[in-house]
Formats: sequence, C-alpha cells, structure tokens
Amino acid sequence: MQIDLNSDLGESFGKYKLGLDEEVLEQVTSANIACGFHAGDPTVMKTTVALALKNQTAIGAHPGFHDLQGFGRRKIEMAPAEIEALVQYQVGALAAFVPGHRLHHVKAHGALYNLAAKDRQVADAVVAGIKAADEQTVIYGLANSELIKSAKAAGMKFAQEAFADRNYEADGSLVSRSQANAVITDPAVAAKRAVKMIQDQAITAVNGDVIPTAIDSICVHGDNQAAISLVKQIREALTKEGISITSQL
Amino acid sequence: MQIDLNSDLGESFGKYKLGLDEEVLEQVTSANIACGFHAGDPTVMKTTVALALKNQTAIGAHPGFHDLQGFGRRKIEMAPAEIEALVQYQVGALAAFVPGHRLHHVKAHGALYNLAAKDRQVADAVVAGIKAADEQTVIYGLANSELIKSAKAAGMKFAQEAFADRNYEADGSLVSRSQANAVITDPAVAAKRAVKMIQDQAITAVNGDVIPTAIDSICVHGDNQAAISLVKQIREALTKEGISITSQL
Amino acid sequence: MQIDLNSDLGESFGKYKLGLDEEVLEQVTSANIACGFHAGDPTVMKTTVALALKNQTAIGAHPGFHDLQGFGRRKIEMAPAEIEALVQYQVGALAAFVPGHRLHHVKAHGALYNLAAKDRQVADAVVAGIKAADEQTVIYGLANSELIKSAKAAGMKFAQEAFADRNYEADGSLVSRSQANAVITDPAVAAKRAVKMIQDQAITAVNGDVIPTAIDSICVHGDNQAAISLVKQIREALTKEGISITSQL
Amino acid sequence: MQIDLNSDLGESFGKYKLGLDEEVLEQVTSANIACGFHAGDPTVMKTTVALALKNQTAIGAHPGFHDLQGFGRRKIEMAPAEIEALVQYQVGALAAFVPGHRLHHVKAHGALYNLAAKDRQVADAVVAGIKAADEQTVIYGLANSELIKSAKAAGMKFAQEAFADRNYEADGSLVSRSQANAVITDPAVAAKRAVKMIQDQAITAVNGDVIPTAIDSICVHGDNQAAISLVKQIREALTKEGISITSQL
Repeated sequence: MQIDLNSDLGESFGKYKLGLDEEVLEQVTSANIACGFHAGDPTVMKTTVALALKNQTAIGAHPGFHDLQGFGRRKIEMAPAEIEALVQYQVGALAAFVPGHRLHHVKAHGALYNLAAKDRQVADAVVAGIKAADEQTVIYGLANSELIKSAKAAGMKFAQEAFADRNYEADGSLVSRSQANAVITDPAVAAKRAVKMIQDQAITAVNGDVIPTAIDSICVHGDNQAAISLVKQIREALTKEGISITSQL
Repeated sequence: MQIDLNSDLGESFGKYKLGLDEEVLEQVTSANIACGFHAGDPTVMKTTVALALKNQTAIGAHPGFHDLQGFGRRKIEMAPAEIEALVQYQVGALAAFVPGHRLHHVKAHGALYNLAAKDRQVADAVVAGIKAADEQTVIYGLANSELIKSAKAAGMKFAQEAFADRNYEADGSLVSRSQANAVITDPAVAAKRAVKMIQDQAITAVNGDVIPTAIDSICVHGDNQAAISLVKQIREALTKEGISITSQL
Repeated sequence: MQIDLNSDLGESFGKYKLGLDEEVLEQVTSANIACGFHAGDPTVMKTTVALALKNQTAIGAHPGFHDLQGFGRRKIEMAPAEIEALVQYQVGALAAFVPGHRLHHVKAHGALYNLAAKDRQVADAVVAGIKAADEQTVIYGLANSELIKSAKAAGMKFAQEAFADRNYEADGSLVSRSQANAVITDPAVAAKRAVKMIQDQAITAVNGDVIPTAIDSICVHGDNQAAISLVKQIREALTKEGISITSQL
Repeated sequence: MQIDLNSDLGESFGKYKLGLDEEVLEQVTSANIACGFHAGDPTVMKTTVALALKNQTAIGAHPGFHDLQGFGRRKIEMAPAEIEALVQYQVGALAAFVPGHRLHHVKAHGALYNLAAKDRQVADAVVAGIKAADEQTVIYGLANSELIKSAKAAGMKFAQEAFADRNYEADGSLVSRSQANAVITDPAVAAKRAVKMIQDQAITAVNGDVIPTAIDSICVHGDNQAAISLVKQIREALTKEGISITSQL
C-alpha cells in the first residue's frame, strides 16, 4: 500500500513571505508550486523549484485565478476559453524552471480548484489547458469530482486527492468552511483518518456514509508549525501501518 | 542570399487592440509574440500563436519588463537573478501554446532589449533565462550588441537583427529616438537600405562609417497601414534583388 | 423638462487607446471617468479630467472591479467590506484630479454595476464606499434598482439612469445581452424612445408593460462613430421636443 | 524642544502580512500609510487608517512606484508628468479613507523617495502631484534634499526628516546600504544620536563634518521586535531629555 503527500508551495511574493517551504518539503512527496497569478513570482518559482529538486520532491504546477489580493480564493467569472489559456500559460511558465520542462503533475488552486470540482465546463477548460501544455502530466483533483471525470474523458493521467483534516458531505464534497465541523483540528484524529482512508480506499462522510474512493494523494499544509506537526504525525501513522509514502503514482 | 523578416505581434490585451497582426503575419517570416508582461494576455497569446501557425510564420517569445502601463519601454532596475527568472518565466509561458513546446527564437522587448544591448550583465541574465527555458532556441539581438556577445559566450544560437528604417551611430547603436534623424521615414529609402545592408553585409552609420555586420534578420512593424506598406516595399525590393525571405537561419 | 446625458470616459490605458473621448465630451453633460482598476491609469485620468473641465462636463468617478484584462465585466466574488474599500479607494483617486476634490457623481462600472443593481448587499457596500469618500456626491444607478434603493436608504443623492438603446424586462431590468433583442440598433428608434421615456417618465418593457420611472439621466456611448452619431440624434430629438440637456439634476 | 516620530505602515497586501502595525502605532506620532502601488490594498488601507485614528496618530500618504514585486524599491524610469499623476492618484486614494479627506502629510516611498531626494525634476513632479491633491498637507523629505528645496519653492509646508540609525555622507545624503557602515545597529548609540541631532539641530557625517539641519521628524521602523525595541529606546531617550514627541510640526 502506498500514498503520495502533496502540499502547496512557493506562495511567497516579492518581499512577502508565506509558508514554511523548507520544512514542509522535507515531509511531502509532491509540491504544488504557485505560478505567479494568485501567488508566487518568477524569482520565487525558480527558488522553490531548486528547493524541491534538492529534496527530491516531485514538482507540479499550481495554477489559479489572476488575483493576488484574493490569493486566488475569489471566484472570477471567466469564459471557458479564457480559463483554458489561463491554465496553459501558468503550466508553461512553471515548466520553464524545471529540468526537462516536464511536470510531474498539475493541481488547480483555490476558487479554480473548487469550481473545477463541481462545474464540468470549468473542469473541461482546466483539463484542456493542462493537456495542451503537457500531455504526459498527472492531473490532481478532488476525489470523485467533475475534474477527475473530465481528466478521464480526455485520456489524461489523474490522481484523486483526499484531505485528512477536512470533513466530507455524503456526496463526496468537502463540508464548507462556513460550517463549524469543516476542519478536523485534532492531529491524532486526522492522522488516524488518513490511515483509514487509504486502508479502506474509502472516505467516511459526516453522516456516516462510506464513499468508496481510490485515494492517490493526501493534501497537507505548511502554513505554520501546527501544520508541519500535523504532517509529521500523518507520516508517522502511515509509516507505522506500512504504507509507503511516494510520488510514484 | 537570404534574410529573415521579424515583427512584434500579439500586443493586444483584453479589450484593448494593438497592431495589424493578420496583415503583418502575411508579410513576415518570424513573429515575436508578447508574453503577458508588457503586453499580451494568455488568450491573446493563444490566438496569436494559432494565427502564426496558420501563416507558417516561425514563432518566438518576446519577453519584456512587467509593466503594461509603460508597454515595457520604461527601464526597471532589477537584479540580474530577477531578470533571468523574469525572462525564463515568459519564455515558458509562450512555449506552452506552441505545438511541441519549442520556440524558433526569443527576442527581448523594449527597455529590456535596449539594456541587454548595452549592459553585459543584463545581457548575461537575459541569455541565462532563455537558455534555461529552451537550450535550442535562437536568440535575436541587435547586431554587434552585448546580447549577441553574451549569446555566443553561452554557446547559444543567435541571429543579428538590423533596422531598415533606423539610422545608426558609428558604434553600431541606434540613433536615439530623441534625435531628429532617428527614423528613416521615406519607405523607398528604407527598402533600398535593407537591400544594401544584406548585399554588403554591412551597416552604414550616420557619419558615413561602414560597420561590417552579418545580418540575419530585419525588424519590421505592423502598427498601422503605413508600417504594413513599408514591409511590402521592403519585401518587393528584396525579392527583386533575388534575396530569399526565410526564417531558416 | 430636462435630462442629463452621461457617458463612460477615460478608458484608455498606457499605450492602449479606447473611445472617442474628445468627440463624446462635446455631446454629453456628465462624464463617468474610469479610475485605474478596470480601465484608465493615473495619466489618463488626469488628461481626461482636464478634457472634461474644458468641455464643462460634470465629472464623476466610474469605479469597477480590479480586472483590466476583463475590463471590469467579469464578476469577482468579494466580501462586502472589500467592495466598500474598493469603491472608496477609486472615488478618492479620481477626486484627487478634480479641482476642489469633489465629484459631481459616482457610477459603478460593468459587473459591479450589474451586481449592485440586483444584490442589495453589494449595493449597500457600493453606497457605503461612495458615502465614505464623498457624502455630497450623486449616486448614479439603474432606475428602480437595488442600488437606488440603497442610496435612498443611506440618505445619499441619487440619479436614475435609463438606456435609450436597450430593451427592458417587465421587472425593470435590462434584457440580457445574450438575448437577440437586447440592443436597439436603429438610431431613430432609440432617439424616439429617449424622448418618450422622459416625456412619459416611464419605461416600456418588451412585453408592453409600462414601468413608471423618474428618469434623471440617459447613458450613451462613445466607442465609435456609430455611437457618436446615435448621441447626436438623441440630442437633436430631445432639443426638438424642448427638453433641456443638463447635468443640474 | 520637540520632534515627530514617523513610521511606514499598512504594508500588508491581501493575505500577506508585513510589519507590527499595532505595536509601532503606540510609539509613533505620524503614520506613512502605503497606498496600494508598492504595498497595501484598499482593505488594508481602510483598516490601517482606523487603527491610526484609534491611536491618535497623524495620518499621511506614502506613495511609491507601481511595483508590488519590488516593494517600490526598484527605480522605474518614468516621465515627470507620469510621476506627478502617479503621486496625485495615490494621495487621493488614501485621503478617501480619512475623515475630512485631508492628510497630515505625504512621504514618498523607497526608490521614489531616493530619486526625489537627488533629482530635482523628479522632486518637482512629486511635489506637483502632492500639491494638486492636497495643497495644505506637509511634505516629508530627507533633510537638505532636492525634495525639500522643491517643496519650499512650491510654497508647500514641509518637514525635514532624519534617521537615527543611519550614517550620513558629508553632503547630507545617507551612506548607501551597500556600505558596511550604512546602518547603526546598536540601539543605545542610535537613541543617543537621535537626541543629539535634535539638541544640536545638526547631523554629524561619517567623516566628522557637522551639517546644520533643522530636524522635524525622525523615521523609525516597525518591521520586527528589534525595530519596536529601538523605537522605545529612542522615545525614552528623548523623553528623558525633555524633548516632547508630537506630530504638531
């Protein structure tokens, strides 16, 4: 049994620092690197790629809406053709910094990720943009989402990701952050949950429903020391159960 | 005898239109496509690449300073490492839109072009950024400039470009646009000058000095009908003299 | 009987030109000047204010979403407090260029205008931003819209605007541009319609319903010669009927 | 004897946090608030103004080059008319958030501050932009700089600022940050220096020269705890010597 651990990285911008990139890169197997639209700038991208290479972390692009002020978390109404070009551009920009110019994966960010999970038209635009920029890369998406369906339909490789520290609705979507029970705050519970998801190949929803799900990757965070600590606990729990941690999907 | 004709393209942005791209693409052999920093946006880039492919025009990236308001014509003091990343990013972004993701060439824009022509440190940063993004591409630069020297030193392919409608100083630099005689406004004179440059493999400076120069490409413009008309006259003059027009450098 | 004619102006940006500002300023009584977020830049704003002053046109701010690529026409999901600050900022920025720093009016642009017409929470945020920046100014809004209700509730002066060349639904909203009959293309019909709206103080919807409406201003455009020609025809028709054209609301 | 203490504030942007604004606002008498071009955004500006009002700190605008990535520290070659409009815009934008819409002062930021200190043409453009936006405000500038001369010539109020923790050249300019002795790192030395500057109304240069200077304000920082601690030591030293700390220039 195996699992990939992915995390968002390279979210600093100019003088502005965000995230404990050096620390989280020691823990995860895949890095989703911001591409300069919702976070990151060319210099940060170059530095982050070098850091990921040093840690032998698989490198992926993390394209988002062009909205630095909103950190890519505000939905912007764009035509599908615009979204396709937006994604294609960012994937290419990051690829420029990677030896061989091929990316391990691409994962959409924030509001674009959420939209692509639920709206097939947006999902298709995101997939088209990724495919046009790199036909061999793996598309990361929320397990059971429209994006995963779209990636399959386009003949692209894909990886289903799950969240150890988020609760799920019965339909496989995440409980909204506006709800009190959106986030699982106890690291021990989250770590246990991660193991169970992978062993069962299923997610248990808040109402108790079990959603069979082939889980390829777990998304973790490096925002602060608490986040780093959670990642370490998840790693320990996985290792203890003999689940190998690898980006070889 | 042969020559390449190159022109800046894809300089529109969102609702803002600039340049007669469709017309100039029928005349030139190489297109320098803006990469979203001084002009262009992902949608414009995608459209422009498609148009260039339709016209079988060789496709190049045209990176510039990140300054849409100044159209990349204002010098921004950046550290060499920042310039390298700036260029690398833009080259990758454009490559994403091109089949095979390899570019025919890269030509810096505006203030970055001028700086790289005179300042070896900037030239080296531009060349490093291009090389890191695409080792096989051709670097276009002002003939006899620091950029050309830097490209040679880095083992990169390069093309020396000349301007048919600009006067030159004795040191091979362009007469500044602040001078009255900077631009040659008579199309017939400019066309004749283009032919002579190629036949002589030399540029005649304003003081009469002859600067031996291997000229690979001539830069032309598509801003308006007068510019298009000039390109046509240059093409006619070249063809009449048996000089073939091609991007095969 | 009297009416104000307002038009969007100052929509150029850097090297990018948009709109026949000089011509339309000779026809209208109120100018809605872009504030650098969806269009315009500080230099364009300064120039446009000077041009409006020369024409004795009343000067208003035209704030929009921060989205130059989308020209402010793409909805961006922002919290009300963010929208309030966004509007307040832009109103202040334009006021800096106006003698006495007081604006005749403020009119929201594009997607922000449309949202504020239908969504009371957005309308309240827009009104709060305007009021905080200039308590004495007049808020322009779609007649019968949520924005007008919000302006009233806040004790702000307001002006109801109507469109001579757009069809209306029975609920007073504009027929969507996605519909074939959204725009009235015959200038003679539009001019006649303008006169009738003012004389009747009512708008006739596409289904024939008559919506009693106190109309203070008519929105016209200066995008191209056809638009200028339409404005001239509207002016002639109004003058012929003895309706005076003035920004004195 | 009295002195003003000023500090740069409101330099956060969206999700990116910078500076210990709450703590430094308890120590200083004047706040230079970023205006959204090199740092800050409308929401941050609104919040920072509210915080300054709560602390009864005098509020000033802190305009800079439009360069978030470079934090306004990279020189951008702009025409004087462009600089004037750039400054006027930002001053107006901040004024929108201030009750009564009048600013206590305006201080240019980073590369614009440095340029305006040395280049009279830039200084005149900055002063013209400030004057056009707020004729009654006080222009803060490096003591003995071109900006101060320009403010005088324009009939504007001005305040000469000095740095307690920076060494000076004999010509009154700051020792460049590229030199080892640019910054005075010992807080006790810096505090003592602040007192001496005010008591002597003179700055002692690195070569021992004494430059008579009427000092109105001392610039301090709130980047981190060490900076806050330095401000506190300066305050204590000033108070001990009976020098009152006030923004009433």
